[in-house]
Amino acid sequence: MKKIKNISIIGSGNVGCHLAKSFFNKGYPVRQIYSRSIENAKNMAQNIDASPINSLGALQNNIDFLIVAVHDDAIEEVIKQIPFRDVLITHTSGSVSMDVFAQYSFRDYGILYPLQSFNKNKKINLKKVPFCLEANNSSSLASIKTLARSISNYVYEIDSKERETLHLAAVFVNNFSNYMYQIAKDITDKNDLPFEILKPLIYETAKKMKSLSPKDAQTGPAKRNDLKTMKKHLDQLQDSPKIKELYKNISELIIKSANQTN
Amino acid sequence: MKKIKNISIIGSGNVGCHLAKSFFNKGYPVRQIYSRSIENAKNMAQNIDASPINSLGALQNNIDFLIVAVHDDAIEEVIKQIPFRDVLITHTSGSVSMDVFAQYSFRDYGILYPLQSFNKNKKINLKKVPFCLEANNSSSLASIKTLARSISNYVYEIDSKERETLHLAAVFVNNFSNYMYQIAKDITDKNDLPFEILKPLIYETAKKMKSLSPKDAQTGPAKRNDLKTMKKHLDQLQDSPKIKELYKNISELIIKSANQTN
Repeated sequence: MKKIKNISIIGSGNVGCHLAKSFFNKGYPVRQIYSRSIENAKNMAQNIDASPINSLGALQNNIDFLIVAVHDDAIEEVIKQIPFRDVLITHTSGSVSMDVFAQYSFRDYGILYPLQSFNKNKKINLKKVPFCLEANNSSSLASIKTLARSISNYVYEIDSKERETLHLAAVFVNNFSNYMYQIAKDITDKNDLPFEILKPLIYETAKKMKSLSPKDAQTGPAKRNDLKTMKKHLDQLQDSPKIKELYKNISELIIKSANQTN
Repeated sequence: MKKIKNISIIGSGNVGCHLAKSFFNKGYPVRQIYSRSIENAKNMAQNIDASPINSLGALQNNIDFLIVAVHDDAIEEVIKQIPFRDVLITHTSGSVSMDVFAQYSFRDYGILYPLQSFNKNKKINLKKVPFCLEANNSSSLASIKTLARSISNYVYEIDSKERETLHLAAVFVNNFSNYMYQIAKDITDKNDLPFEILKPLIYETAKKMKSLSPKDAQTGPAKRNDLKTMKKHLDQLQDSPKIKELYKNISELIIKSANQTN
């Protein structure tokens, strides 16, 4: 295992920003920050004593660890422009295989995938974010593990196939749950009701997962097979045929699932 | 406004239990607890100095306030058996109109609907639960409001139509979000991955609603219209055609919604 000291980061998005700050705070010097926009690179670099660059050709190989934190579809384009190969390199994507590094002749590579949804203007405590790690050899894995453990309490070894599975599951708990909130907000907005009133229920629904399985936590008209209430709800949704269809489909799945238990 | 002192509660389910304890703790004597099962009534009554009964005919009219906290489809059957009419009566349902009380000749009635999902074996702080109130006259409304404010910091006047709308919205944020968690758990279970790893993401997704609208909080492949990742996810779901269909439908709705903003 090679001892990592110096880090550079490619990408000035939410993941890159959070990682840069955390590693800097843990005493890892962050040498260079790359962004297509030099302004973004500067903003990110200024508080952590790093050099902003907007050309991948300007990357210097005086580092031990290079993090590619760009959109999934930009990863390949970025890594083929990196002007050296003698560095341990990782990307942070939930759905891109690490084979992409082998394709461009890197020798030591892996994954540092934070299983969390990052938003601009929303602080997050990385300590509580699960990190999924993978590497192409045990020495690289050990190095990435040391780094990840310095910033998070939840570090898992997860291979590429497992990571893809987790990413799919994450879409359901994050993107799709969030869309359920959006439907609710559309409903309350349309009826001049405060969305605020639903927020405690949103928090409690999530918090229940601390002590209950989703199946045990399930309540509501579909779980009870309360046809009268479901019929009433479908009538209320008659002006939104797509949402009505969604209500029907999810309810049918909940009914089916409830029947399987009983 | 009549000053309320004594309360009785019909129903020994989650809502009834939580209300009984809270009112007792706030100094309102709880006189009788009705349940079809005398054991359940006893369990609930014992710590709050109330009398357990399992016959509605045994209800005494030495009370100021009667709460019907039973399943929606049992409400009517219960209230027609109550042996007196000179009491302020409420039910706790999100979807049953308060007209049900007029039908059975009650004069003072209303709604005390806690907008939260209660589970057995899961403590809840009622102070943070929004209560939706309604009444058939201003004096009853004032009494119910005083009571509700004694146990909750979030008390809203909501008419029956608005309450039905909120109940529908609540199904999306609670029952349907929870079902998204269940799909994720099914996926992780099937692939021998720990569901635990997704929990921080579940909490964070909900917590984001403190500072962001659902639309602004949305991330993920559908939001980015990342067809490659969505195609990969659909392939991963090929053994679960109903869930695959759901993934497709929700993704299409998110894509449509994202396009409306841009």
